[in-house]
Amino acid sequence: MPEKMMATRRDAAVLCDPLPAFFRQVRTLSAALVASLSDADATVQAMDDASPAKWHLAHTTWFFETFVLRDHVPGYALYDERWPFLFNSYYEAEGERHARARRGMLTRPALDEVLEWRAHVDAAVEAALPGLSAEARALVTLGCHHEQQHQELLQTDILALFALNPLAPAIWAEPRTPPAPAPAPIRWIEGMRGIVEIGENGADGFAFDCEGPRHPVLLHPHAIADRPVTNSEWIAFIDDGGYRRPDHWLSDGWTWVKANAVEAPLYWRRAADGGWNAFALDGLHAVRPAAPVTHISYYEAEAFARWAGARLPTEAEWESAARCFDPEGGNLLDRAGPARPCASPAGEGVGQMFGDVWEWTGSAYLPYPGFRPAAGAVGEYNGKFMSGQFVLRGGSCATPRGHVRASYRNFFYPHQRWQFAGVRLAKDL
Amino acid sequence: MPEKMMATRRDAAVLCDPLPAFFRQVRTLSAALVASLSDADATVQAMDDASPAKWHLAHTTWFFETFVLRDHVPGYALYDERWPFLFNSYYEAEGERHARARRGMLTRPALDEVLEWRAHVDAAVEAALPGLSAEARALVTLGCHHEQQHQELLQTDILALFALNPLAPAIWAEPRTPPAPAPAPIRWIEGMRGIVEIGENGADGFAFDCEGPRHPVLLHPHAIADRPVTNSEWIAFIDDGGYRRPDHWLSDGWTWVKANAVEAPLYWRRAADGGWNAFALDGLHAVRPAAPVTHISYYEAEAFARWAGARLPTEAEWESAARCFDPEGGNLLDRAGPARPCASPAGEGVGQMFGDVWEWTGSAYLPYPGFRPAAGAVGEYNGKFMSGQFVLRGGSCATPRGHVRASYRNFFYPHQRWQFAGVRLAKDL
Amino acid sequence: MPEKMMATRRDAAVLCDPLPAFFRQVRTLSAALVASLSDADATVQAMDDASPAKWHLAHTTWFFETFVLRDHVPGYALYDERWPFLFNSYYEAEGERHARARRGMLTRPALDEVLEWRAHVDAAVEAALPGLSAEARALVTLGCHHEQQHQELLQTDILALFALNPLAPAIWAEPRTPPAPAPAPIRWIEGMRGIVEIGENGADGFAFDCEGPRHPVLLHPHAIADRPVTNSEWIAFIDDGGYRRPDHWLSDGWTWVKANAVEAPLYWRRAADGGWNAFALDGLHAVRPAAPVTHISYYEAEAFARWAGARLPTEAEWESAARCFDPEGGNLLDRAGPARPCASPAGEGVGQMFGDVWEWTGSAYLPYPGFRPAAGAVGEYNGKFMSGQFVLRGGSCATPRGHVRASYRNFFYPHQRWQFAGVRLAKDL
Amino acid sequence: MPEKMMATRRDAAVLCDPLPAFFRQVRTLSAALVASLSDADATVQAMDDASPAKWHLAHTTWFFETFVLRDHVPGYALYDERWPFLFNSYYEAEGERHARARRGMLTRPALDEVLEWRAHVDAAVEAALPGLSAEARALVTLGCHHEQQHQELLQTDILALFALNPLAPAIWAEPRTPPAPAPAPIRWIEGMRGIVEIGENGADGFAFDCEGPRHPVLLHPHAIADRPVTNSEWIAFIDDGGYRRPDHWLSDGWTWVKANAVEAPLYWRRAADGGWNAFALDGLHAVRPAAPVTHISYYEAEAFARWAGARLPTEAEWESAARCFDPEGGNLLDRAGPARPCASPAGEGVGQMFGDVWEWTGSAYLPYPGFRPAAGAVGEYNGKFMSGQFVLRGGSCATPRGHVRASYRNFFYPHQRWQFAGVRLAKDL
Repeated sequence: MPEKMMATRRDAAVLCDPLPAFFRQVRTLSAALVASLSDADATVQAMDDASPAKWHLAHTTWFFETFVLRDHVPGYALYDERWPFLFNSYYEAEGERHARARRGMLTRPALDEVLEWRAHVDAAVEAALPGLSAEARALVTLGCHHEQQHQELLQTDILALFALNPLAPAIWAEPRTPPAPAPAPIRWIEGMRGIVEIGENGADGFAFDCEGPRHPVLLHPHAIADRPVTNSEWIAFIDDGGYRRPDHWLSDGWTWVKANAVEAPLYWRRAADGGWNAFALDGLHAVRPAAPVTHISYYEAEAFARWAGARLPTEAEWESAARCFDPEGGNLLDRAGPARPCASPAGEGVGQMFGDVWEWTGSAYLPYPGFRPAAGAVGEYNGKFMSGQFVLRGGSCATPRGHVRASYRNFFYPHQRWQFAGVRLAKDL
Repeated sequence: MPEKMMATRRDAAVLCDPLPAFFRQVRTLSAALVASLSDADATVQAMDDASPAKWHLAHTTWFFETFVLRDHVPGYALYDERWPFLFNSYYEAEGERHARARRGMLTRPALDEVLEWRAHVDAAVEAALPGLSAEARALVTLGCHHEQQHQELLQTDILALFALNPLAPAIWAEPRTPPAPAPAPIRWIEGMRGIVEIGENGADGFAFDCEGPRHPVLLHPHAIADRPVTNSEWIAFIDDGGYRRPDHWLSDGWTWVKANAVEAPLYWRRAADGGWNAFALDGLHAVRPAAPVTHISYYEAEAFARWAGARLPTEAEWESAARCFDPEGGNLLDRAGPARPCASPAGEGVGQMFGDVWEWTGSAYLPYPGFRPAAGAVGEYNGKFMSGQFVLRGGSCATPRGHVRASYRNFFYPHQRWQFAGVRLAKDL
Repeated sequence: MPEKMMATRRDAAVLCDPLPAFFRQVRTLSAALVASLSDADATVQAMDDASPAKWHLAHTTWFFETFVLRDHVPGYALYDERWPFLFNSYYEAEGERHARARRGMLTRPALDEVLEWRAHVDAAVEAALPGLSAEARALVTLGCHHEQQHQELLQTDILALFALNPLAPAIWAEPRTPPAPAPAPIRWIEGMRGIVEIGENGADGFAFDCEGPRHPVLLHPHAIADRPVTNSEWIAFIDDGGYRRPDHWLSDGWTWVKANAVEAPLYWRRAADGGWNAFALDGLHAVRPAAPVTHISYYEAEAFARWAGARLPTEAEWESAARCFDPEGGNLLDRAGPARPCASPAGEGVGQMFGDVWEWTGSAYLPYPGFRPAAGAVGEYNGKFMSGQFVLRGGSCATPRGHVRASYRNFFYPHQRWQFAGVRLAKDL
Repeated sequence: MPEKMMATRRDAAVLCDPLPAFFRQVRTLSAALVASLSDADATVQAMDDASPAKWHLAHTTWFFETFVLRDHVPGYALYDERWPFLFNSYYEAEGERHARARRGMLTRPALDEVLEWRAHVDAAVEAALPGLSAEARALVTLGCHHEQQHQELLQTDILALFALNPLAPAIWAEPRTPPAPAPAPIRWIEGMRGIVEIGENGADGFAFDCEGPRHPVLLHPHAIADRPVTNSEWIAFIDDGGYRRPDHWLSDGWTWVKANAVEAPLYWRRAADGGWNAFALDGLHAVRPAAPVTHISYYEAEAFARWAGARLPTEAEWESAARCFDPEGGNLLDRAGPARPCASPAGEGVGQMFGDVWEWTGSAYLPYPGFRPAAGAVGEYNGKFMSGQFVLRGGSCATPRGHVRASYRNFFYPHQRWQFAGVRLAKDL
């Protein structure tokens, strides 16, 4: 249960209910993430895949108002009856909704109004919490994790927006750390073999439905890299003609490269000196060689691996390797600010499994054996997206600490790269 | 004020310079038009054809800063060297520019920053005015008329944006006037015949280059309606299957109707009682039967005319009929507020030539005999748009008073209808 | 034969009926035009704008079967009741029809079956002709002129198809004539001024409805070039950066140039020696410098004229200049074979008005004063296309001799260039 | 013949070389498959996903000419040096090629010319076969299996083309068999559990590279249906609102249903009596209730399974179940003619694993552990398509007998349904 997880973090001996604090912490972070945004910044939609920051704030609030307050708090009246239509995302069972591609047209309600709605709903949830049923409490918990997902999206979506502005404005202006030394060459760590169990069984704390059921898988002899691929290694790929030689690429990937004239990770721009700059949450800066490459698509990750004579890990390989690491360790998001992937620390063995960058696996996002989605609208959470996407693992520098787990399955289409997505290599033994 | 300017034009002995007042009046009105808009309202772009309100404010300022201050005021330093790239519209001679379809991505600079830029440029222009050359003064005048055009676009573009919001927010909340009585049936007024002159000769005051040269045209026997078509008449067209019978329509028009499932003017929505509401600058209200129909495309105007056994006037017919009317009379824009077409006043003879709604003519937008665009960037103002568009005449309720003339040629593509465009019938005799 | 028909027009005393011979001549030429085509050649559709050769053969046959045999010959039974759905082009009054973009999917009926249908319909029309009413005879005449239009389209559509084949197969293999000497530089011939009449009055022989009513127009002082622009002159335009400088172009034209990477007339290809080849009905050959340029769009014609300091003629200017020439003279189509524009012959005064290349005018395709389309399905022939297109005049090397007249108005969209379209310059005096 | 080949596999003592006979049998069948097609039928491309029949004939010939004759037969001169550009499909290593979407524009070379080329290449291969190296022989074998794949595509592509013809012409006119009795309700057969091996090891006869390496997989407790889903069962799904309820569908699937207004399998059309007809290789006929449903997408298969409370089998489940069946038994293609899925025969246990319809599995098409594509151009055969597609198993009525195996992995995108694709259910135990 998440209560345990939360408690564990701060205090081994918890006497009181951790859910209110978790709720408050999550809700507070969302508001902090938009602190540097104007009303306009929070309203515009960078592309169909992205949503406005304001929409994220409202949609996560809609989730609590609908599934907790409306359904479980007798007498609760909707704050504004017209807003559910605006802020439902994709829950067909909840009826018609505003078209996704038009989310950026909603200049009203304004950011301030949405923040007021948030305060109203927060107060109502907090007031109701002590008396909520276990079912309703589970929905609050789900809503918090749901909101944490949107916190990451909020950051990547606002980054996508600011990247379209020729002024390249920094979302967060904080001093940069000095460049890290180049990490040692990749070392290959042999993975477990034979039958291992992966997935969540619902007994160890919160997990999304798609993370289970826990089940045995058969691992083939393999090794996994001790760290993600760095920007410096990626530049070697570029310099070796990586984006110009079709034999490195999946057929769909090559079509995508040509159709979009792709020649570097998203947000990279040629500098005047021939090097590379990258646009990030802290503005436009020179690419940092030692940091993990990010904002790459599955196609790019796969092509790089082919070029490197390796492959992507399967999600079972990844998860079995990650089991021994603390999912709350690593470069994850603790506070509002310019999330940045960091260079690998010196060390032995596998590192950086959690945080920094999501790692593309070679596994398609499909149901585990025995998977059944939950009944009702919340059952639309994960299962219905199980076609055409690939699994990413491990969380990123923009993932709220506490949100990710070894069993956590993120998923995107192979061409998408506006997330903090990177790559760790694997190979057969 | 434009009235003074008009007077000045005709009076060789100028005692006081009307240009500063004209400049100030125009610049002030633009700011007033966005008074009810939030930063977000002013930033979002409703569609590719439209621009954000903030962009209009900035682009008109760019015009003065570039063509007047930069080119004619020694020592003037650009307010921000990065902004011309953002706010050039289509002047190829002025270099590369931000893509039109991405104008809505520019959340920075914010509305306030743009307003500050406006103030800075206003002060610089006003300071420079007394010493400007005649050439530079002509550019200030051009800039004012240019800005008046953008004032109208600003209103129609923000209307297009708010129309996409399911909340149907009113841009201006002002009490509605009581419904007007139905006007008398259309009366046909015989037009001039034989050779008449149309167009501007550049001697009577400001005009855009495309309005001249003044030249003779041959008018065929014809009559023109005494007023525009009303909403009530349009409803009769709808009820008679006007949008369902291909024989009323141009081939391209019928394709457009089917592809877009058009069944009424833009912004009309079926009311619960089976009648029609329309979304306007003052929100969603029942269609007012006596007012001129607006937000129709050329295709619709032409189909209606065919259905009515009539045709559209040519621009020469229109202009010859309009010569006897005061272009500063009529329902034009005097101040920021909810511009609305009004019902025809009782009266005899042709009416409502100026104001209320732009009137589609049956004339393609093409150069007059002897037309030559001006040299340099400002020569891109009109001439390069002379293909595929039709001429509209007369101004609308959203056109600043003083901006329109009998010779004024507005132009849009035949499918476009987000302007205050309506229709006046004509017929052969 | 059209010559006879023309004679008939002028001779009130008709001794023999020319219509059967005209019908036979037209129908025979169509079949001859496909003589070198395989079933596959005649079936495939090169693009949405074009139609398969087989479709042209069938559609023109459908016209006679529907409007003459079905409607005016009692007891006539349709050859195949399923075929009208396939071969109606755009006559809404004739009901639903096969989608235009899918004409190339109709591998059945085969070319041979369509030719059999033609023979069947030909026999039925010829048998019926002596007893047909004047109304029905007018439809036969219309059908013949309609088919002549499709004869030209058939040639340009099959050219468009073969141009997509990397083998560049020649449609007609005939020896080329030796290159012509370069014509003298363009001379400017002063045009008529003042009021002249243009258009057909229906009394002088066949004309399409859109060519009338005959009406006075006012001509402004102008001059017209004595010949069309040549390939050699076009190469000078290219070499001077004509396709790279936006200031030559209409705004829509420049967008079109960039979107399609246009750098030369359609079908031109860079030769190995840096010169230009062009693909034509007789295969791929070096561009002939002295011949009129062809396969250019309105945008290109207009840009060239701007570059040359001239403009396009209006259709009234063109028609008034053409009145003194024999529309059956010139390089027009007499027989099936590789139609080619030819170099201007030596001579004085205006030349090449008829034949060689259609000449883009600067006039939008709009109704003449007093124009009313015919009632019924044949009324859809012309009038409904009167938006967005420009008029071309004079016929081309692919226009059957006898088909074109001084009053003849051809029309295409400004981006279209798969017709034999060229340009003659004009200028203001 | 493939029978012999199979024998060869199992029998170490080979007395005669089966490859020439296999080659001849494959090449002969291709030609027989186009026997009823006209030149036009064989030339037109129904859609981007499909290719013209003539192209299939030519491309398979190009494969032998390029990889066998050009590369392994000294002195062989290409039949026509321009044709490889036309008929390479997607082998980047073989250079530039004609755009896939324009294959239908190639009316030349004609069908007859391609058949002559085939004869020429056949003679050259047959002459060379006795002296070919083992490497070259392997390429001949690969070419034969490659051509068998194209034989199936040829049939489905020509079906797609004829389905666009409103005349609904039958490709093969053969009498239909009387309707089969309805099969018994689906019975669930328990599958193997624990570790089993799947995939080919290259030692048992021909297999494509993607079928290996053979490797252990872990099977979870499950059952598999004894037969595919029938048309009658599919009609129950339709009648129960299967295509109208989003909760049955994957998110991408529901988007696809709405965007394409899908309401039944491809080629189904409402009959006048409210029932269903289906267009097939033998024309338009009433849907046969007892036969397996076909021409469904993955999305439809998955939605049906959800509706039925079941799921799709994984490819490992399918393969382990199929191991005990003869892959040369079942309703597969023996000769040119109207391939049709047949009703399940009476019987016990799992049936119809091979033939009738390809069966969508729930497995994404991804590499097996240890998979490495072959070097060179033929290495582009399979591996580069491993993203976004799902695996289908078992072959269909249009798959040449001898071509399919238990390990055979076919793959298509989840929206594609012009193949003979059906569905067999599975469930967890």
